[in-house]
Amino acid sequence: MLNPSVDPDSSIASARAAGRRPGTGPYLQEVSGTGSPHTPVWFMRQAGRSLPEYRELRVGTTMIEACFDPDMTCEITLQPVRRHGVDAAILFSDIVIPLAAAGVDIDIVPGTGPVVARPIRSEADVDALPELTPDRVEKIQEAVRLIVAELDPATALIGFAGAPFTLASYLVEGGPSRNHEHTKSLMFSRPDLWNTLLAKLSDITTVFLRAQVEAGVDAVQLFDSWAGALSLRDYRSLVLPHSTAVFADEIVASVPRTHFGVGTGELLGAMGEAGVDVVGADWRVPLDEAARRVPGKVLQGNLDPALLFADRRSLDGEVRRILDEGARAREQGAPGHVFNLGHGVLPATDPGAVTHVVDLVHELTGK
Amino acid sequence: MLNPSVDPDSSIASARAAGRRPGTGPYLQEVSGTGSPHTPVWFMRQAGRSLPEYRELRVGTTMIEACFDPDMTCEITLQPVRRHGVDAAILFSDIVIPLAAAGVDIDIVPGTGPVVARPIRSEADVDALPELTPDRVEKIQEAVRLIVAELDPATALIGFAGAPFTLASYLVEGGPSRNHEHTKSLMFSRPDLWNTLLAKLSDITTVFLRAQVEAGVDAVQLFDSWAGALSLRDYRSLVLPHSTAVFADEIVASVPRTHFGVGTGELLGAMGEAGVDVVGADWRVPLDEAARRVPGKVLQGNLDPALLFADRRSLDGEVRRILDEGARAREQGAPGHVFNLGHGVLPATDPGAVTHVVDLVHELTGK
Repeated sequence: MLNPSVDPDSSIASARAAGRRPGTGPYLQEVSGTGSPHTPVWFMRQAGRSLPEYRELRVGTTMIEACFDPDMTCEITLQPVRRHGVDAAILFSDIVIPLAAAGVDIDIVPGTGPVVARPIRSEADVDALPELTPDRVEKIQEAVRLIVAELDPATALIGFAGAPFTLASYLVEGGPSRNHEHTKSLMFSRPDLWNTLLAKLSDITTVFLRAQVEAGVDAVQLFDSWAGALSLRDYRSLVLPHSTAVFADEIVASVPRTHFGVGTGELLGAMGEAGVDVVGADWRVPLDEAARRVPGKVLQGNLDPALLFADRRSLDGEVRRILDEGARAREQGAPGHVFNLGHGVLPATDPGAVTHVVDLVHELTGK
Repeated sequence: MLNPSVDPDSSIASARAAGRRPGTGPYLQEVSGTGSPHTPVWFMRQAGRSLPEYRELRVGTTMIEACFDPDMTCEITLQPVRRHGVDAAILFSDIVIPLAAAGVDIDIVPGTGPVVARPIRSEADVDALPELTPDRVEKIQEAVRLIVAELDPATALIGFAGAPFTLASYLVEGGPSRNHEHTKSLMFSRPDLWNTLLAKLSDITTVFLRAQVEAGVDAVQLFDSWAGALSLRDYRSLVLPHSTAVFADEIVASVPRTHFGVGTGELLGAMGEAGVDVVGADWRVPLDEAARRVPGKVLQGNLDPALLFADRRSLDGEVRRILDEGARAREQGAPGHVFNLGHGVLPATDPGAVTHVVDLVHELTGK
């Protein structure tokens, strides 16, 4: 078993083991702190719009339809593994899928993002937010099982969910927001109602991740995309407890857990206290500095996705620098380094640049 | 004179003195480090869309027309002073106005922002970027003179410009960008061309700010809106020298200088080295922590503009906390604190909340 604290004979472990292969490749070795033959590499948003085979497959299908279609989800999840040779697949999904699964009237509008029909602002709105029951994510579990059956055992499958704060921002603002004014207003003016909302969202996220673990994902990553909009003080008092509740779930905690948000330099230490094995950093904080801010955690990151647009000489220089900083982070006590971007792959990225980075990371670190 | 290093008999000082009144109100006292009767307060974007009198005045006029219409610019600049009783006016303008003045084909599209007809990507594009000659900003100078003539001498007038990096991002991307991929690609792949572009933009910014100082503004603020997208390493090597060149201009340097960018927690120390008196911090970094990062500089900030949407109890609590942190910053050596937001006033803000904050800051700090 990956996590020695989980008894292989327990019912949880059995439930997981039933659906999964005994993968122990470089990603899982690295995140469990035992070291791996080379620095593992994967990319946030590696599955998606940067790949022509993805764009072709998605023609005529909405994002929500694609996420609830097990065959399509499986194929999209595997496309970047085949093309780039990454050390981990990440389940193709969207931050708002558990909300849609729970029955929230939400749409993902191309070019805009998630749009919520009735934003949540009042006590009645929070009361009306439905729970997520496991039967509503069976299609997601089916997708996980299909992926696990096809994936090389050396390649890990990472489960995916959005963190309670980020879900709340979409629900309260009614869509993507730069300033989160309604969310922050609710947070400050009605901390009681805010905590009720976040507790409900924490439950939804937990059910969603638990279903993925039970179906066989090897690890999970919780994305708090918008957490970087908060001060450390507000993050600690009004957000961290709810993310911690997700990671504390016994089934979720039976696999390695990664937490990430963009622009979270001030929050890294707190995010590391949420009950996680790995903390992702964006390109604003060098990995050796991140190691000081998040002691004792494996670090993930942190190539600026914009650098995939630069020439190869510059790109290679940045990859080498990040690997050097990762090595220094290890010297400072970080138990490992997973190479990744500091944010998701941008849609216009040349897939060749992504493959090149995978090859370079593998070559430079001993594969 | 405000700045004792400037000889009042010099031609520069005379040029400035010709157009201005001998203002020595709380803002100018605070930023010169001599202390003031109360903590001065003003708000980024205080002039603009949050005010009904502004929206009424702007009907039928484009943003660029408004910025080149001295009477309208004067009226818009003074509106928040009359309504809120702030300690400083900031010249109504837009980041891209000096580019438009220089002859760049640029439009400000409502709901989108600046849109550049021909993005700058090549050597030929950089060569073709026109210079800004002082005669092209005479309307801006006329506006400054009108404002100075009307403004109470106790209220400072702050001049306005965008920093070279932010201007470059608009020009290279062709408009507002979340990820700045073309800008960063140019920066890394062609550092020579990047530095040529930034040097030209630094000249344009300098001419724009110098014209304002010569016409009578009491101080200047340089906005590097997008600098927070950069790592400290890249900011230091590829951006800071060009911002420093602007602040080093003899005429610009004859008034107190403020530098600000949102999300710049990692960059604050470097921004403080650009040749400035005041550094603005956003709400992510408490002012006492900012004082450790930018030793010896007056601090400006840092109420989250989203908090102006919260209830008065929460808002007042945040104002008190920021004033307390400002006081601790002073104990740690910051020579002053100018109360402001951590970003601009949001369009949907209730102007009553803004007035309330001004009154509260004045009341709590001794006015």
